[in-house]
Amino acid sequence: MYKQKKYLDNQPLADAINKYNDALKAAHIGGPHAGEHIPVGDALGRVTSEAVIAKISSPFYHSAAMDGYAVKFIDTFGASETRPRHLDVPSQAVPIDTGDPMPEEYDAVIMIEDVEKTSDTEIEILKPATPWQHVRLVGEDIVATELIISENHVIRPVDMAAMIASGHSAVMVRRRPVVSIIPTGTELVEPGSELKRGDIIDFNSTMLAAMATEYGAHAVRRHIVKDDADLLRQTILDALADADLVVINAGSSAGREDFTVDVITELGEVLVHGVSIKPGKPVILGIVKGKPVIGIPGYPVSAALTFTLFVKPLIYALLGLQTPGPDTITAKLSRQVASSLGQEEFIRVKIGSVSGSLIATPVTRGAGALMSLVRADGIIRVPAESEGIAAGHAVTVELMRSTRDIENTLVCIGSHDNALDVLGNYLKKKHPEYSLSSAHVGSMGGLLALQRGEAHLAGTHLLDEETGEYNVSYIKKLLPDTKVVLVNLVYRTQGFIVPKGNPKGIKAFEDLRRKDVVFVNRQAGAGTRLLTDLHLTKLRIDPAVVNGYYHEEFTHMAVAAAVLSGAADTGLAVLSAAQALDLDFVPVAQERYDLAIPGEFYDLPMMQALLGIIRGNNEFRERIVSMGGYGIADMGRVIAVLG
Amino acid sequence: MYKQKKYLDNQPLADAINKYNDALKAAHIGGPHAGEHIPVGDALGRVTSEAVIAKISSPFYHSAAMDGYAVKFIDTFGASETRPRHLDVPSQAVPIDTGDPMPEEYDAVIMIEDVEKTSDTEIEILKPATPWQHVRLVGEDIVATELIISENHVIRPVDMAAMIASGHSAVMVRRRPVVSIIPTGTELVEPGSELKRGDIIDFNSTMLAAMATEYGAHAVRRHIVKDDADLLRQTILDALADADLVVINAGSSAGREDFTVDVITELGEVLVHGVSIKPGKPVILGIVKGKPVIGIPGYPVSAALTFTLFVKPLIYALLGLQTPGPDTITAKLSRQVASSLGQEEFIRVKIGSVSGSLIATPVTRGAGALMSLVRADGIIRVPAESEGIAAGHAVTVELMRSTRDIENTLVCIGSHDNALDVLGNYLKKKHPEYSLSSAHVGSMGGLLALQRGEAHLAGTHLLDEETGEYNVSYIKKLLPDTKVVLVNLVYRTQGFIVPKGNPKGIKAFEDLRRKDVVFVNRQAGAGTRLLTDLHLTKLRIDPAVVNGYYHEEFTHMAVAAAVLSGAADTGLAVLSAAQALDLDFVPVAQERYDLAIPGEFYDLPMMQALLGIIRGNNEFRERIVSMGGYGIADMGRVIAVLG
Repeated sequence: MYKQKKYLDNQPLADAINKYNDALKAAHIGGPHAGEHIPVGDALGRVTSEAVIAKISSPFYHSAAMDGYAVKFIDTFGASETRPRHLDVPSQAVPIDTGDPMPEEYDAVIMIEDVEKTSDTEIEILKPATPWQHVRLVGEDIVATELIISENHVIRPVDMAAMIASGHSAVMVRRRPVVSIIPTGTELVEPGSELKRGDIIDFNSTMLAAMATEYGAHAVRRHIVKDDADLLRQTILDALADADLVVINAGSSAGREDFTVDVITELGEVLVHGVSIKPGKPVILGIVKGKPVIGIPGYPVSAALTFTLFVKPLIYALLGLQTPGPDTITAKLSRQVASSLGQEEFIRVKIGSVSGSLIATPVTRGAGALMSLVRADGIIRVPAESEGIAAGHAVTVELMRSTRDIENTLVCIGSHDNALDVLGNYLKKKHPEYSLSSAHVGSMGGLLALQRGEAHLAGTHLLDEETGEYNVSYIKKLLPDTKVVLVNLVYRTQGFIVPKGNPKGIKAFEDLRRKDVVFVNRQAGAGTRLLTDLHLTKLRIDPAVVNGYYHEEFTHMAVAAAVLSGAADTGLAVLSAAQALDLDFVPVAQERYDLAIPGEFYDLPMMQALLGIIRGNNEFRERIVSMGGYGIADMGRVIAVLG
Repeated sequence: MYKQKKYLDNQPLADAINKYNDALKAAHIGGPHAGEHIPVGDALGRVTSEAVIAKISSPFYHSAAMDGYAVKFIDTFGASETRPRHLDVPSQAVPIDTGDPMPEEYDAVIMIEDVEKTSDTEIEILKPATPWQHVRLVGEDIVATELIISENHVIRPVDMAAMIASGHSAVMVRRRPVVSIIPTGTELVEPGSELKRGDIIDFNSTMLAAMATEYGAHAVRRHIVKDDADLLRQTILDALADADLVVINAGSSAGREDFTVDVITELGEVLVHGVSIKPGKPVILGIVKGKPVIGIPGYPVSAALTFTLFVKPLIYALLGLQTPGPDTITAKLSRQVASSLGQEEFIRVKIGSVSGSLIATPVTRGAGALMSLVRADGIIRVPAESEGIAAGHAVTVELMRSTRDIENTLVCIGSHDNALDVLGNYLKKKHPEYSLSSAHVGSMGGLLALQRGEAHLAGTHLLDEETGEYNVSYIKKLLPDTKVVLVNLVYRTQGFIVPKGNPKGIKAFEDLRRKDVVFVNRQAGAGTRLLTDLHLTKLRIDPAVVNGYYHEEFTHMAVAAAVLSGAADTGLAVLSAAQALDLDFVPVAQERYDLAIPGEFYDLPMMQALLGIIRGNNEFRERIVSMGGYGIADMGRVIAVLG
């Protein structure tokens, strides 16, 4: 039924948004919702759908502003130190506390401090009262009929107080837009399911529902729909019965099992299918039965981005609010970014606030790299008409974290080790105000990042073949004029990752000579690559005879994955990588993994907080030891102060 | 029982906080809460109580990254345009879609575009595959055992996705702190009650509960407790059974019916009673049964401030979070602020972003002025050791609204009219991104604010006795070198406000001569005062013979309140003031109420949006007419362009 070849449009973002908005407007869709009456006590964060006008004044009666006696000012006339006046209690002076209503016809309060009680029925005063002194008059705070809160206002705690004080116990607020999210895909399974190969856990719908909730909508996550056009059609119709807006994730592309566009076309109208953005191109903007129906691509980064671009403004419009733009900062791009002409690209970046300047470093661009979005600090946009941005250029970054958070983040670039993750967690645990951000580019890459002023510290384990010493000679060479404090984090065990049971019986580097053994190597500049090369040199093994020597991977995990998949028989990596994929491990060397810290950052409070954990936190140390493969004999010790 | 005289301490703020924190620490109170297990789907905005570590990798199997055929790369070796290779389907090449798991022992994907299907059982390829091309490897996004989210992290939508993707369907989050709020006071009544003189509607507890909710707590608003020590004692004990923190509002001072401090002392310990801050001095910081019990003063501004200073940090600490500081900006103080030595004062300010510079203008300092808090943009702190801050000084403002909101706010200073409130509401309704802020200082005060560059526009109705023309001569005199566009808003009816039924039969200014009539006047500089003086001059009435001529009030409403209270028999004001207090009204004159807009602000988009409503919005016009006493014949017309 849906076999015809589909093609994606390639509309510029602004055109797509305009075209869709025009169609929505023409169909009278998307204006602010009508209001509903709710108790003021439940109204926090809701949006007023009409102005709140004071029903009563506050105070609504004249009241005492001080503790003392209510009097008629005329009775006090002429009182002085030399000619005190005596007032009869209660006919001329009535005891009154702050907030008490003024008795009828009384028009001033004399403070208790200014009164001498001469008997139970008389007071003496030494100066006259002025009319209405120490009296809170009707309407002093709020005047009946005055505007308390305007329409389209997000209600704050103090607004709730003012509404109640002005005589309202309920308020008209915009009905929450109902956003129905339909996860589609035969391969999708619910979170918590038993997993088998080929399953994909549906995490997008939870993320999109939470985003809608953040924007102020009521989000409904529907059950997963298999790739079946009839089912999808029925689910969309069911969703439309209750929802103001339906989001289908995914099946929005033009593949064999991508039914979304056909079903929307059949039920209503597709205005846009395909926008020239990256990621997120295969988005569908449609209208069915007078409601927006939007197809969102399946890759998580594409899903989050397109939801932000296309769904967020619709939710805000239904609430009668301007879509809040992201906070932005200007940062210096740390490395060149290439981009295709004709496509607006959204690039995730990490931001380092190092030596007072903000540096944006692009992270992986894969639309499937969810963790890159979790760890991103912001997004830069490369316009469609640009082929890229040069390193050193100032770029505008749309922030995903506050500048305060970014300023309180230690930027660690270099070799990755799980101990860094654990360290980052303990830092956050003991000092919630600080974060550790780590980017994994290999040991050499980390020292180069220090050189460029992009990081506060670098994790490094570079073995000098000649001296047998770790890190020192490399730092001297790469950062000759910089004071660097080298602090040990751990000793760690490198070894051969092998399939369960070590079928080829690999024991040592000598085995790499064997014709039946396929090796997987690390990239040049990685500490682990240096370790390999050192051992091969020592054993006089010619790299050319090692099968797979030129197959390079960039992480410990990629090496482990190559072994797991059978692409290689073995590769050198740390124990934790073997454990992660349930592989076996043959230890071959213990190496020193240090943190290189430029002197200018060593005394930063957040750096001292980090070092405090490394040096003084027993829980942290025990946790590292319990992970296996780590030695903590020198943990926190200053190995050398260089430069 | 509680009759002994109580005295408030006067501890400096920092000392009070330190003393209380030390006591809490000594009693092991206030550390982060333990965690509770909740579904990831419910975790938005909650705080992790332990690190989230990936249980599984994502993807957890090798999968196709493209639509095409899964192959073994070895089979493709040597393929070229001149020597194509043929692969048998399915023994050598298996059709595969993006996301499908790779068949066992297959190690590359050839894109559908690079394949020629030569028969149902054969494909032809023109170039070899490289190992693992177009394959998403195990762990490409998430590696089992890696840190996904650290402890003490506020969970975002994308974090929820990552937790699910890494094998979690539930997460450990900090239990929400339970904050119990006890409203006390015999005079308090629930919102929505029938009101009688002496009642005070309890709005504070709703405000404080909402504040606690915003900070991440679960707030419990308890029933109102009468001023009765036994009842209060029992309520505190009941509250402590469920709550982590108890807040009592109010009775925190040292008056006759202020039991709070005695009851806390009896049940536990009072560490601090009285802090040298203004407002908010009579705060109580106590500990009962190992939990913080805090007495908050009753005036709403004091309540909000002390809750922020003392309760907010405790809630954040229980959540394991750093208390977020306010965003701050630097602004120029528009007028001098005096302050008492020895008291840290918190002063509400309005901020105007006028001509690119930020100007902070202090508003009323009354602790009971709730609306001043509703309308404030921020707070400045005057340190205890300062006697005040001079006009023109740069001050740090703790923001209550975003800088974006402040930049999108038209600042209107001058004479007040209810039509301005309505206008502000329609502006927000039609243009949710803009706000109108109006401060009421009289017509002359408004023109002086324009002169000082503190406002974008001024509402003015200044009648020139000589020319009979409104506003023009005053603007020429006060703003001689400034281009000012004078736009009419309304004509409005001024008249005598009289008690219901007009018992003294007041009809015209002539009646002010009468010995039995007491008048209430407006302050010098008010347009209404000028109107009075003009009529008296015309009628040759000597002000000295007018009873009450020297009794000056600052607003239309204060005049109406004086009449309501019987302090005066009549005063000149606008119709809406009479309506607000249900008084009668004798019209005497129609006057022109204009907006004076300096030329430099006339073309601002937000000013044009405002003028668009004045000129083109029928709903707005109808609303104004329906209020009574207004003429709209010239609404929006440019009366004059001056300077």
